[in-house]
Amino acid sequence: MPLPDDLLAHLSARFGERFSTALPVREQHGKDESHFPACPPEAVVFAQSTEEVADAVKACAGSGVPVIAFGTGTSLEGHVAALQGGVCIDVTGMNRVLEVRAEDLDVSVQPGVTRKQLNEYLRDTGLFFPIDPGADASLGGMAATRASGTNAVRYGTMRENVLSLQVVLPDGRVIRTAGRARKSSAGYDLTRLFVGSEGTLGIITELTLRLHGIPEAISAAVCPFPSIEAAVNTVILTIQSGVPVARIEFLDKVMVGAVNRYSKTSHQEAPTLFFEFHGSPASVREQAEKVEAIAAEFGAEGFQWATGTEERTKLWAARHNAYYAGVALRPGCRAWTTDACVPISRLAECLLETEEDLKTTSLISAIVGHVGDGNFHVMLLVDPASPEEAAEAERINHRIVRRALAMDGTCTGEHGVGHGKMAFLEEEYGEALDVMRAVKRAIDPAGIMNPGKIVIP
Amino acid sequence: MPLPDDLLAHLSARFGERFSTALPVREQHGKDESHFPACPPEAVVFAQSTEEVADAVKACAGSGVPVIAFGTGTSLEGHVAALQGGVCIDVTGMNRVLEVRAEDLDVSVQPGVTRKQLNEYLRDTGLFFPIDPGADASLGGMAATRASGTNAVRYGTMRENVLSLQVVLPDGRVIRTAGRARKSSAGYDLTRLFVGSEGTLGIITELTLRLHGIPEAISAAVCPFPSIEAAVNTVILTIQSGVPVARIEFLDKVMVGAVNRYSKTSHQEAPTLFFEFHGSPASVREQAEKVEAIAAEFGAEGFQWATGTEERTKLWAARHNAYYAGVALRPGCRAWTTDACVPISRLAECLLETEEDLKTTSLISAIVGHVGDGNFHVMLLVDPASPEEAAEAERINHRIVRRALAMDGTCTGEHGVGHGKMAFLEEEYGEALDVMRAVKRAIDPAGIMNPGKIVIP
Repeated sequence: MPLPDDLLAHLSARFGERFSTALPVREQHGKDESHFPACPPEAVVFAQSTEEVADAVKACAGSGVPVIAFGTGTSLEGHVAALQGGVCIDVTGMNRVLEVRAEDLDVSVQPGVTRKQLNEYLRDTGLFFPIDPGADASLGGMAATRASGTNAVRYGTMRENVLSLQVVLPDGRVIRTAGRARKSSAGYDLTRLFVGSEGTLGIITELTLRLHGIPEAISAAVCPFPSIEAAVNTVILTIQSGVPVARIEFLDKVMVGAVNRYSKTSHQEAPTLFFEFHGSPASVREQAEKVEAIAAEFGAEGFQWATGTEERTKLWAARHNAYYAGVALRPGCRAWTTDACVPISRLAECLLETEEDLKTTSLISAIVGHVGDGNFHVMLLVDPASPEEAAEAERINHRIVRRALAMDGTCTGEHGVGHGKMAFLEEEYGEALDVMRAVKRAIDPAGIMNPGKIVIP
Repeated sequence: MPLPDDLLAHLSARFGERFSTALPVREQHGKDESHFPACPPEAVVFAQSTEEVADAVKACAGSGVPVIAFGTGTSLEGHVAALQGGVCIDVTGMNRVLEVRAEDLDVSVQPGVTRKQLNEYLRDTGLFFPIDPGADASLGGMAATRASGTNAVRYGTMRENVLSLQVVLPDGRVIRTAGRARKSSAGYDLTRLFVGSEGTLGIITELTLRLHGIPEAISAAVCPFPSIEAAVNTVILTIQSGVPVARIEFLDKVMVGAVNRYSKTSHQEAPTLFFEFHGSPASVREQAEKVEAIAAEFGAEGFQWATGTEERTKLWAARHNAYYAGVALRPGCRAWTTDACVPISRLAECLLETEEDLKTTSLISAIVGHVGDGNFHVMLLVDPASPEEAAEAERINHRIVRRALAMDGTCTGEHGVGHGKMAFLEEEYGEALDVMRAVKRAIDPAGIMNPGKIVIP
């Protein structure tokens, strides 16, 4: 439905050239990197300050018009689709690092700052921000979807690394969810309520994030295994032994092949683990020795070490490009990416049963996993023009989700709900979903914030 | 106001001898360990299962009667005071450890299990639960108040160590907030919403908690400093250097004296830090050397090491008994305990200004602090019969809270809000407090869950 004339006039007058109803702009803002079809908003506001976001939200609230926040558009469950039309607020222009407080190991940023931009900015401070989803996503979007990535096994997810948020509420008021103390027991945990709320309760306009010291020593390794089971059992024993590994990533044989072709590497095409160890030189050596011994128990040979910065960067670039390497396996396709996460004791079983599923499909598929957390992704390569292939991917995704839920896991470890995973929440939460609905109704009674995502109130 | 006759009859029939309206029972359930006066409920139900809690809540909800959960009664902000009468549900009978899953490093427990009971139970597993408030509190109560303690600097608080909760909602329905996956981005973070909600949104009837491997090596040390500033600067530099210290606790000169007398120790009476290091033998040695070097920079001499289990236990027992040692400084008194927490860069300033405040009062006072988190407590010893002394303690507490808030800290690091800290939340959160009110109204529309705590909806 088109926007009311008075709202159009108001936003146009308020934002001038930073307000657009041009179709290409709208189309670009209605889709993410998922397989879901684009669903453009009626208009886009390019906001440059909290005040501007608040003004735009207030104007939309006055007309009962939906509001959808937009960062880098790299989400994977249709989070930015304007399912009920409305106004998209693009915050990529709010991209300043506001204050680094090295002495407190924290930083305040605007929501459009991307993770790579932040780490580039921090370069000379000896500090870094560890959360690294595949894309160079905006930090606002990462908080909104409770993102994580390869470092979560040691450093946690956005849940653990956001200290405080500034949020524009659905009525345009601006709040701050917490101070900067490392811990607090002062009432309901508003910070954690907005982390993962996907723009359905408010729009994040500033974030205060925890930083970590760059470790004195870092070493990385890659190691092929005789089977998926051997690789996963190595992971399980490593975690259970309390080795404080920083990264422990799994790639299946297909994915290693894809990475080799895409990144011009020559890893042995077998189920493979990528490791990284952080700490003092002695501690890193000790961790590495322990893990190598565990891997040997499960038949691994050929640990290949990367200790120099350049070597390590190359190794991890190959891992980080796995998504694009996977997509390149079938030119013209789109990736349908699953995101199950299970208790680690169930991971081998979950992956092996999933491997059996994949044998039943003609779709090309590859597996990558943040296995230290029990989280893995199956990439299913689908012809965007084929409804049969989409249905087939959906079938496999359903099986994987149901399996994860039966193992007391979750339908989404780090990609969020968007509209793509909503159907599974009833099964995952049962009546607890009513509490989410009640929270949504309480904070956004008019239902204008990113409607049709997470829960239908 | 007395309970309606039909509710009395119903609860009495349902719970038999485990329902009581006897004054001594009610009085015992209306007070905690704080300076606040007792405020007994009208009746007490001793529940033994989730179903019983749900039945009791349903019955109370039917009559619009308040419900207050009760564990060990060791809270410090009047959390269990029945300000509007009602029924107290004592869950101490729900004290079974339900399932230890060593392979997933987690455990499910009933809410009445205490932290010491759990660690005793885990004795032969090589695992432990690190959160250790002063009291041997129930785990349900610890989750409800978002408790922490001496290990939080390394292991986090209840916020980071609860994986999932079973909760009885205000209408008697039973929900589970999450599965057991280590991470999830599946919608609003219900687990974190109930952690710290102090029984105002529902009653916790089961908890799944993260466990940690008992470190291969542990060493502890105690070290006197020439000044508070020297001690705190040592803490700040230790944290900033990224030393993964497990515990770093501060005691002021008065408190060290109190501990010496109470626990028959002979520590030098000076501002003192207690340290503990966890890890491999090499890593523990390395951490200890780094911290000793940092302390030396600030003029510390005389690190006294405790590496054997018995020595360490003795050292930490003395620290853990600090509360009781403090109270013993003035027989017959009650302790008024503050709980400010600030960003670590402001800690020295905050403590030094607080020390100046304490020079202006005739009350005996002592300071202990979980200083690695920026959190400290001033114990003010107050004659319970003297309104003047209470007013004086309140005056000092206000000054400390205002100072912490001005430094972007919090009015309560780990004790929670209860009714004792409610007056400060407006100042700490501003309009964000409206979001808490909206959440309270949404989940507990009749306002029967522990009314008069955290927020007035």
